[in-house]
Amino acid sequence: MIMRYSEQICPRYQHAIAILGKRWTGLILKLLLNGPLRFKELAEKIEIVSDRMLSERLKELESEGVLERRVYPATPVRIEYRLTEKGQALAPVLDAIAQWGERWVESTLVLTE
Amino acid sequence: MIMRYSEQICPRYQHAIAILGKRWTGLILKLLLNGPLRFKELAEKIEIVSDRMLSERLKELESEGVLERRVYPATPVRIEYRLTEKGQALAPVLDAIAQWGERWVESTLVLTE
Repeated sequence: MIMRYSEQICPRYQHAIAILGKRWTGLILKLLLNGPLRFKELAEKIEIVSDRMLSERLKELESEGVLERRVYPATPVRIEYRLTEKGQALAPVLDAIAQWGERWVESTLVLTE
Repeated sequence: MIMRYSEQICPRYQHAIAILGKRWTGLILKLLLNGPLRFKELAEKIEIVSDRMLSERLKELESEGVLERRVYPATPVRIEYRLTEKGQALAPVLDAIAQWGERWVESTLVLTE
């Protein structure tokens, strides 16, 4: 990921929020923390993401070393996405967000149709 | 903030990451955790954000109750942005991100010119 940084704020922090801040990333990570999932399973759980966007995001997270794509030779071939150690290490971040949400965010139930 | 939710993931969590995930939000919050700042100070520290984008993001965060805009009658008028209690409560989230960044993110120093 090539991005521009402010020189006045820690570049690692900026890079971290650039990874985490992208749309769908927080949901993908939350789901994969419970264990590996196949593409179709991820798409079904997130519901409101297009296959194209999900695929793009998974590729980015793979190139960042946050998750890996494992191909199991079978018929039909089975492909799973799972968090790496780097990805698993995001659990405290997601927990902190969930705690903040519980305490401070109203549940505005604008659900998908 | 009106947004679409997946029915299979806690809506509070989805709302929380929708707030936190937007570009610049992580930097704005980090800077304001150190105390109130004026618009110009925020813009100078973030460096790479346009005034228009910064203004838009500050308005959103104000409408979410994360920060407040205080106007001090003076000549010229002084306007400061400061975190609310809800915004201050994000400190553990930002700390967790910073810790993860320290440990896992390479410092790819693509600095602004």
